Amino acid sequence: MSLSETELIQRLTQDLPADSSVLTGPGDDCAVLDWGGSKLLFKTDAIVEGIHFERDTPPKTIGRKALARALSDIAAMSGTPTHALITLGVHAEMEPSLIEAVYQGLRDCAREHHVNIVGGETTSLSQLTLSISLIGRASKPILRTGSAVGDAIFVSGELGGSLAGHHLNFTPRLKEARWLSDQDIVHAMIDLSDGLATDLRHLLSDQTGAELLTRALPIRRAAKERARDNPSGKTALLAALTDGEDYELLFTVSSKDAVPLLDGWKSAFPETPLHCIGKITDQPGIALRDDKGVKPLTLHGYDHLEQS
Amino acid sequence: MSLSETELIQRLTQDLPADSSVLTGPGDDCAVLDWGGSKLLFKTDAIVEGIHFERDTPPKTIGRKALARALSDIAAMSGTPTHALITLGVHAEMEPSLIEAVYQGLRDCAREHHVNIVGGETTSLSQLTLSISLIGRASKPILRTGSAVGDAIFVSGELGGSLAGHHLNFTPRLKEARWLSDQDIVHAMIDLSDGLATDLRHLLSDQTGAELLTRALPIRRAAKERARDNPSGKTALLAALTDGEDYELLFTVSSKDAVPLLDGWKSAFPETPLHCIGKITDQPGIALRDDKGVKPLTLHGYDHLEQS
Repeated sequence: MSLSETELIQRLTQDLPADSSVLTGPGDDCAVLDWGGSKLLFKTDAIVEGIHFERDTPPKTIGRKALARALSDIAAMSGTPTHALITLGVHAEMEPSLIEAVYQGLRDCAREHHVNIVGGETTSLSQLTLSISLIGRASKPILRTGSAVGDAIFVSGELGGSLAGHHLNFTPRLKEARWLSDQDIVHAMIDLSDGLATDLRHLLSDQTGAELLTRALPIRRAAKERARDNPSGKTALLAALTDGEDYELLFTVSSKDAVPLLDGWKSAFPETPLHCIGKITDQPGIALRDDKGVKPLTLHGYDHLEQS
Repeated sequence: MSLSETELIQRLTQDLPADSSVLTGPGDDCAVLDWGGSKLLFKTDAIVEGIHFERDTPPKTIGRKALARALSDIAAMSGTPTHALITLGVHAEMEPSLIEAVYQGLRDCAREHHVNIVGGETTSLSQLTLSISLIGRASKPILRTGSAVGDAIFVSGELGGSLAGHHLNFTPRLKEARWLSDQDIVHAMIDLSDGLATDLRHLLSDQTGAELLTRALPIRRAAKERARDNPSGKTALLAALTDGEDYELLFTVSSKDAVPLLDGWKSAFPETPLHCIGKITDQPGIALRDDKGVKPLTLHGYDHLEQS
């Protein structure tokens, strides 16, 4: 595989058939479709043994993670998930009780978020694989496009070190995203799955960039501990920028809305951190500002195909 | 794997969360959802290297087959497909040009049937896998349930020997199914993917059965030729009953509607065969009637997991 996932997807999504019912096609967290005047969100997301979980990951947790990841994409559009289909690829020697436990995790997560599971299929595959198809609705979907120079950049929760546990037990930010939509101030939003350094680029255009304040980045304790225990590995800052699987909301608002937003959020979600981590600039690319000045960030987060 | 696919799915689909928006859940060709008063069809279907195609199958053909199978399920509900998402599992050493050719097959098939491709994802997998998520609409979806004792059983096209080529170049019976829906006479319908002997059972209840006329079964020439070339293998009749991958419509109508239906179909689709192959009875199970009398049919068609 000589192409990166990004390059390959760019090639594949050229010239796809699309009529006027496609309000937002490939390239956002979900497709947005005009369905008889209402807006329908449509998304598919797969997790694969050896990439997103291990053979010894508890099976209920695997099911939970598969659905929660897709729900996080619906959250990124400020939508409400409604119906899911489950595609399960299982190896022939897998115990039915294990498969049932995977399904139990799916069912529990679906019930928690009022999602109907309406079918799916099982097929034989050499790696355990769960692919979720999800539809939902959104009255005013928030897209990745729409950020403007001067916008403040916000992130929910904390970043980095997800593999220590967060990637298996995160809560998709559905209610926070709907609350944000109700405030009617968010310009652009994405959920963080591939790492801040990669996903932030999706909120930028060719003419805009982002300046991040390194001291403002909320770093998860697990990332700090890992950096302390392994001084020759990733720094905690690098982990926060590139680890991926944070499943937090990253979004921009006008700078004038930043302080009222922080106040409102604190009342609505007292237990969930929200941090302003930087601003949108007219300098393409991402820059990091610390005590010593500003330097460009060139590294990327997780690229699925390059990892394989 | 000690359970059959059918038994496992029965276990997995117990106790799934479903509210009143779910008009038809697991167990039919598609889920049927109430979406603001309109009926939305929702379906997912996957094809896997080594099961549904081989490593040397032309890549455009693989893409085409993946989408056409899902379209056949929309046809089975007499629906109109509208939007698809593509999940592509590729091995790391796969050439990008091959992946692009798979996508070309998908695009061509989508365009032919006026389906929008609105996104998807690629992930690493040891077997090439294509999973299609599809939504569509149907004003009056035809379900698997609804057949009545005395109904005539019809099948479009021909059966058996699909692996000789038909499974890669069939045309999903979308226009025929919508025409059938307009006639307003069909009681129950399914598309034939796992073989007549298996799929017909889905149109039966615990109290009903089917009697097939062996001489009326339309057997594809490829099945006859294979039986002739390999006398110790499957008979042509057994092939028509069990080979699978026919992607034809199987449906029932009242016996009084049978002759007008055949006349109308012949005018509408002069090049597509339609055969009355038997009737629904009050004797559970499937029976075969030939010159020598009636005998029960116990064999089944293709069971995905048992094949693996």
